[in-house]
Amino acid sequence: MRVTQIWTSIADAGRDLLRGRLTARRTSPEQLAADLLSTRGDAVGAALAHELVQQLAGSGGDTRIVFLRYLARSLEVDPARINEAAAGYAADPTAARLARLRHAVEAPRMELFRRMNMAPNGIGSLVSLREFLLRNLADHPEFSAVDSDMRELLKGWLNPGFLSLVRIDWNSPASLLEKLMRYEKVQKIPNLEALRRRLGRDRRCFAFFHPALPDEPLIFVQVALVRGMAASVQPLIEPTSEIGDPAAADTAIFYSISNCLDGLRGVSLGNFLIKLVVGELSREQPALRTFATLSPVPGFLEWYREAAVNGRLDTADNARLERLEQPDWVDDETFSSEAKPHLEALAAHYLMLEKRKGRARDPVARFHLNNGARLERINWLGDTSVKGLGESAGVLVNYRYDLAHIERNHEAFANDGTVVASSAVRSLIRPLAGDDS
Amino acid sequence: MRVTQIWTSIADAGRDLLRGRLTARRTSPEQLAADLLSTRGDAVGAALAHELVQQLAGSGGDTRIVFLRYLARSLEVDPARINEAAAGYAADPTAARLARLRHAVEAPRMELFRRMNMAPNGIGSLVSLREFLLRNLADHPEFSAVDSDMRELLKGWLNPGFLSLVRIDWNSPASLLEKLMRYEKVQKIPNLEALRRRLGRDRRCFAFFHPALPDEPLIFVQVALVRGMAASVQPLIEPTSEIGDPAAADTAIFYSISNCLDGLRGVSLGNFLIKLVVGELSREQPALRTFATLSPVPGFLEWYREAAVNGRLDTADNARLERLEQPDWVDDETFSSEAKPHLEALAAHYLMLEKRKGRARDPVARFHLNNGARLERINWLGDTSVKGLGESAGVLVNYRYDLAHIERNHEAFANDGTVVASSAVRSLIRPLAGDDS
Amino acid sequence: MRVTQIWTSIADAGRDLLRGRLTARRTSPEQLAADLLSTRGDAVGAALAHELVQQLAGSGGDTRIVFLRYLARSLEVDPARINEAAAGYAADPTAARLARLRHAVEAPRMELFRRMNMAPNGIGSLVSLREFLLRNLADHPEFSAVDSDMRELLKGWLNPGFLSLVRIDWNSPASLLEKLMRYEKVQKIPNLEALRRRLGRDRRCFAFFHPALPDEPLIFVQVALVRGMAASVQPLIEPTSEIGDPAAADTAIFYSISNCLDGLRGVSLGNFLIKLVVGELSREQPALRTFATLSPVPGFLEWYREAAVNGRLDTADNARLERLEQPDWVDDETFSSEAKPHLEALAAHYLMLEKRKGRARDPVARFHLNNGARLERINWLGDTSVKGLGESAGVLVNYRYDLAHIERNHEAFANDGTVVASSAVRSLIRPLAGDDS
Amino acid sequence: MRVTQIWTSIADAGRDLLRGRLTARRTSPEQLAADLLSTRGDAVGAALAHELVQQLAGSGGDTRIVFLRYLARSLEVDPARINEAAAGYAADPTAARLARLRHAVEAPRMELFRRMNMAPNGIGSLVSLREFLLRNLADHPEFSAVDSDMRELLKGWLNPGFLSLVRIDWNSPASLLEKLMRYEKVQKIPNLEALRRRLGRDRRCFAFFHPALPDEPLIFVQVALVRGMAASVQPLIEPTSEIGDPAAADTAIFYSISNCLDGLRGVSLGNFLIKLVVGELSREQPALRTFATLSPVPGFLEWYREAAVNGRLDTADNARLERLEQPDWVDDETFSSEAKPHLEALAAHYLMLEKRKGRARDPVARFHLNNGARLERINWLGDTSVKGLGESAGVLVNYRYDLAHIERNHEAFANDGTVVASSAVRSLIRPLAGDDS
Repeated sequence: MRVTQIWTSIADAGRDLLRGRLTARRTSPEQLAADLLSTRGDAVGAALAHELVQQLAGSGGDTRIVFLRYLARSLEVDPARINEAAAGYAADPTAARLARLRHAVEAPRMELFRRMNMAPNGIGSLVSLREFLLRNLADHPEFSAVDSDMRELLKGWLNPGFLSLVRIDWNSPASLLEKLMRYEKVQKIPNLEALRRRLGRDRRCFAFFHPALPDEPLIFVQVALVRGMAASVQPLIEPTSEIGDPAAADTAIFYSISNCLDGLRGVSLGNFLIKLVVGELSREQPALRTFATLSPVPGFLEWYREAAVNGRLDTADNARLERLEQPDWVDDETFSSEAKPHLEALAAHYLMLEKRKGRARDPVARFHLNNGARLERINWLGDTSVKGLGESAGVLVNYRYDLAHIERNHEAFANDGTVVASSAVRSLIRPLAGDDS
Repeated sequence: MRVTQIWTSIADAGRDLLRGRLTARRTSPEQLAADLLSTRGDAVGAALAHELVQQLAGSGGDTRIVFLRYLARSLEVDPARINEAAAGYAADPTAARLARLRHAVEAPRMELFRRMNMAPNGIGSLVSLREFLLRNLADHPEFSAVDSDMRELLKGWLNPGFLSLVRIDWNSPASLLEKLMRYEKVQKIPNLEALRRRLGRDRRCFAFFHPALPDEPLIFVQVALVRGMAASVQPLIEPTSEIGDPAAADTAIFYSISNCLDGLRGVSLGNFLIKLVVGELSREQPALRTFATLSPVPGFLEWYREAAVNGRLDTADNARLERLEQPDWVDDETFSSEAKPHLEALAAHYLMLEKRKGRARDPVARFHLNNGARLERINWLGDTSVKGLGESAGVLVNYRYDLAHIERNHEAFANDGTVVASSAVRSLIRPLAGDDS
Repeated sequence: MRVTQIWTSIADAGRDLLRGRLTARRTSPEQLAADLLSTRGDAVGAALAHELVQQLAGSGGDTRIVFLRYLARSLEVDPARINEAAAGYAADPTAARLARLRHAVEAPRMELFRRMNMAPNGIGSLVSLREFLLRNLADHPEFSAVDSDMRELLKGWLNPGFLSLVRIDWNSPASLLEKLMRYEKVQKIPNLEALRRRLGRDRRCFAFFHPALPDEPLIFVQVALVRGMAASVQPLIEPTSEIGDPAAADTAIFYSISNCLDGLRGVSLGNFLIKLVVGELSREQPALRTFATLSPVPGFLEWYREAAVNGRLDTADNARLERLEQPDWVDDETFSSEAKPHLEALAAHYLMLEKRKGRARDPVARFHLNNGARLERINWLGDTSVKGLGESAGVLVNYRYDLAHIERNHEAFANDGTVVASSAVRSLIRPLAGDDS
Repeated sequence: MRVTQIWTSIADAGRDLLRGRLTARRTSPEQLAADLLSTRGDAVGAALAHELVQQLAGSGGDTRIVFLRYLARSLEVDPARINEAAAGYAADPTAARLARLRHAVEAPRMELFRRMNMAPNGIGSLVSLREFLLRNLADHPEFSAVDSDMRELLKGWLNPGFLSLVRIDWNSPASLLEKLMRYEKVQKIPNLEALRRRLGRDRRCFAFFHPALPDEPLIFVQVALVRGMAASVQPLIEPTSEIGDPAAADTAIFYSISNCLDGLRGVSLGNFLIKLVVGELSREQPALRTFATLSPVPGFLEWYREAAVNGRLDTADNARLERLEQPDWVDDETFSSEAKPHLEALAAHYLMLEKRKGRARDPVARFHLNNGARLERINWLGDTSVKGLGESAGVLVNYRYDLAHIERNHEAFANDGTVVASSAVRSLIRPLAGDDS
């Protein structure tokens, strides 16, 4: 019997209380929030939280924008109060004054969020509110502090110690599989039957769950158990591909990692998930020797274009780029085999040497390298899907996770941005024509 | 598959890394804590957290004192840093400077605690550490800030939205029932067979659980479904008492509420628990009309003695006190029937009028009144156990929970300390002899 | 921990024993069966049963035919022994002689089947063997006695007291839903997404399970909760149809009942299932007033043709039949509205008056009428699927289940074949032209 | 959702039907049974079964005797019908005539029992009825055929393939542990706390369950994991005995096997249970080398007395017997050490050579030897409890289960009564004085 299931009884009692005296006034989420923050009673608090969550769930974009504006302005810290508390602490650094300062630097909306969590699906409501916020952040930079606060709160609540790792297979609830289908963005799943192949006995799928969101996977990873390090993804997800014997596999290929809830952006869970799954698979199938991803290079083509514009490439590179922009080049075998070494060299260059703020420019590379993986291999024509061609020029990369080295690799990357790569990848690099000058 | 179960695999990997290079140095919990705080790798972090939790679990009091001292001194806030950050913010109140100030006012041990939660049973380890701290706080007032930090952290993690309400009965695991037996402090349970009566079909027992502590009840309440408001507790827990028909009951008596984990002191859960159970029982048995506790008055006799010493009582009161201090007065029916009206009057006075810091002096009264209950009835000789006679002079009190009024009662008590009581109780009060002058 | 999961350990031990001494000889299922019947040891018995079940699982049709022939001939009753035992009993009717006679009339294969059930999935193996037998019964009438024995045994094992009624919805395992998809023969399900609509909140699906076949539904029924008695099936299963509020429904339409395992033919479960589901839905949704099926009339067109050939119909009826045999008549609205009253009359006649062996000729009618339902309404163009048009000329029938009358209806039908029908249906009947003469 | 839980809804419907027309007549279990047998409707059938089961549950001994007499007389086979059917078959041995004969040799009560199983807890009701029957069988030998029929039916329903093996430990429901406490007859358990030691991590407890009796263990075995073959039982069940490391154990001692339901007498489950547990423990703890029981010799002292009376013993044996009949001999160390070799010799003689109907006379020996165990060791003063001294003169025996030999041992015992024993035991035997002559 979970609290959320019977929570309504206490909220109902509170709602009865509210009805008589306050109905007229409490029409907006902002009013409800203000009341929720000022009440000291649990029952009324639960009722208010319940009503606020329900109002938000049913509200349109305009209402939500108004509510976010309220959070941003009316429930913001008070600089005067901070300065006063800071001065008090500076004069007399006691525990009490420190507590007052701490209280002053926390925006009052934090307490509101905590109280909203008393409502059934409170956390779900916050995640969804933040998802809305993030979609509108570009137009409303004033919501940025609200976003930070929500992220901090969710980070604390989703501490890895509270998560469950769940293996998903064809015996899992259809409703859950349907969600995976919807959340999978890397290697799209057209229907449930297509998902079936990905849950065959030579495949693995794991997800993180939080107890307060029992029906919502937070993030999931799809793995293929194969012989040898796979170089392309299409054969792995082909519904009619032959099903292998998992005990005969020596390699686990992590071919897709999907965050499910946009409202959890910045609450990093993928790093833990990968390592836990590596550990779990090592135990289940001791014959597995290699753990590696098959990952896109989503910023490659964009960078290629930039480099061309900036005159960093030679004529042949520029000509190849033009061909890559035309449809159907992938069927032109003459071109693609000629292009192979050059594209691999450019990809190696891009992944290892191109930086932003001192770290790898490619976001996927940044994630795996920071997570302790090694850039293992570059696979020309590894992903020939529309998306794969359009972003990565068909290149797919293996990042390798060797638990014995992830710590060292991570430190190297974190401390000075060093990209740890296999000698095969390192040897691909050649200086860019335009950089020589 | 919970994370804690397979968490070890990642920690094992991390431990392999640690073994070679660091074994010699990492001998103390303080070293482990320092390393855990400075590492940026998940695997090593998990391994360090695991080892730290295990070291603390096996450690004796001396080691724990040293570790707490480390937390208190080395992982304390740095006033200079706070003041500097505050000055920066005062000069230029940007989001970045506010973030810096927030970081400065949080003691570094908070991050340590969060990282310890990556270990299996991390939260259990922290709860147990705090229990030790609280036992030694009187001798070590310097641990007070550590205690506050732990309480804040646990409060956040044990947000009611994350708790489960679980009904416990005779089909519950024996290991869990054994824990209830051990944790029950109000109405002691001598053995499992005695507990059986308390789980009969006219009894209810509910507990809060947190998903990360699946085997540990946090708090539980025992309820008897009866006809009429019970005035004494012994008949309710008597193993051989007749079992009633729950559908025929009109009253639910909450005769015992026990916090299970000393390390959660100050993390208030009882208020929620009572109200949820009232709501749940209302739904299960709509014939229930009255919800009331049967509660001790633990400070009554102590106050009686104080009042006598301070000359606030008359000669007859003083003589009665002397008799109450002698053994076996409870069997002296002449005395007890003569004393009844006087003791009831004193108890009513004590509960309604005696204050500390502006609120009811009796701790149990304070809890229920603040929680919105009404002081309903005073029962002479309601608890004739040794503990009941020794603390409450045998007096037992009903506090009544009426969901329709708890909010109003709570506000009255919280705003100006008003004790809401039935007219029956109010009419018992008489002025104290010594207060007249 | 189910026995079947660890049963292998004892079977393994037995297998070790077998290996040395018997391998050579035990090559065929018949040898294994003979050994299994003669052994008195549990471990060897379990090992033999396990091996026999596995051999049969992997065997082709020829092997199975040989095995069935062995069951039919070598494990048949011995008439001489029966007659001898009968004579003994006639001479001296003691309990011991009765026991001997009982033993003699039971074919030895019954004991073999019971012992096969010691193997993991023993019952599943028998069900599958019987399915094979039934497919080959026409060519092998000598298997008929084996079939009867298996049916008797399965009937005893699948006594309703041992079944579980399970509600299936979109949270059920995908693997189970996939099975429903495959087993549904009445209203075919093209893919899992199509099934989703049938599991919406205004739909219900229930199945019987047996504990020894935990992954195999035995029979399932699909129900739509609607307002008013539905007259056609397509709107109910249309994936894009609007989802209704189950609480607002007054009628439950049982639009499909599917037996899952062909090997259970003759083990009647549908009658129980319908009544249990009526009871269960009454409890869940007290507003439901009407419980009725939407059923095909699978023998209607066939009978129509027969009646035409036999000169029982008039010229117009014959002309309509000719039109019904042409494709696309269903789109010819002029025809179909002219034909409506005539077809309804013929269908009413067929269902109420045409008999075989004294009972309703139509198999679906026979099932529901014997089960206590009432023939409630005839729906012209209720099922315009290819199958519906090809067998039932598009006619669909509501059989109504009123728990207050099912006993009486059943008795009327069972005792003298009386078809209980609504006055609306009764009034449709007109004498057949050819029957007049 | 189990059928039994919602079965009532269909039974309720049937009961409504019954109420009006039949109440007056249906007052006795016999009437209900007759009606249940003659009805053809499921709903009325379920209602009748439900009512019959409930009437029997609440009935006293007299009512049950009357009901059993009804089963024995009115629902007995009809010899005339049997003879007629047998003659028909003899004249023309068709399948139909065989079916008729089979029907005739089955008493009609069998069908009644099967229909009773439609009621919630139908099987439990039958088990309990048979328990009553067995308690009264000596006074009512006419119930013997009813008993045989019930045993046959229960045997079929409790086919090992339908049972679950469940491990029981301190996390099992208290209600289940309480049942074990009550059912344990060999090594009595005074209270739940005492049971706790028997469920420590160096102990194992396994039970068989049937899905239709989910709260009732059928039989359970208690095992101690120790080093070396234990020779006495008291140290194993002593609540304060030290808890060992299960991984360090080399021997599993089965020190108690208890059938739970007297109504299942003759439905042999113990043989399977022991072998499954041996298999299961072998897998869990591969270091276990020896599996042996610690068993009483319940007929030993009785036989000793008989042998004395019959003059088969010498004077010294007779004198020892006299001493054994006196209280407190067990504290007389001089006597007991003198007596040891003689008693061991007599016990070995009794167990190996004394027969009844060609098989071992001692019932416990008969069970284990028939089950394939070997008589391994005789332990003087292995059980010094009152029961142990009173029946077995304190002797306790190890029977050893070696899966590699149980088949051979069983065959030897089953074919010609050979008791397989260790050489140590065989060498203990000496001729009895009185047998020499």
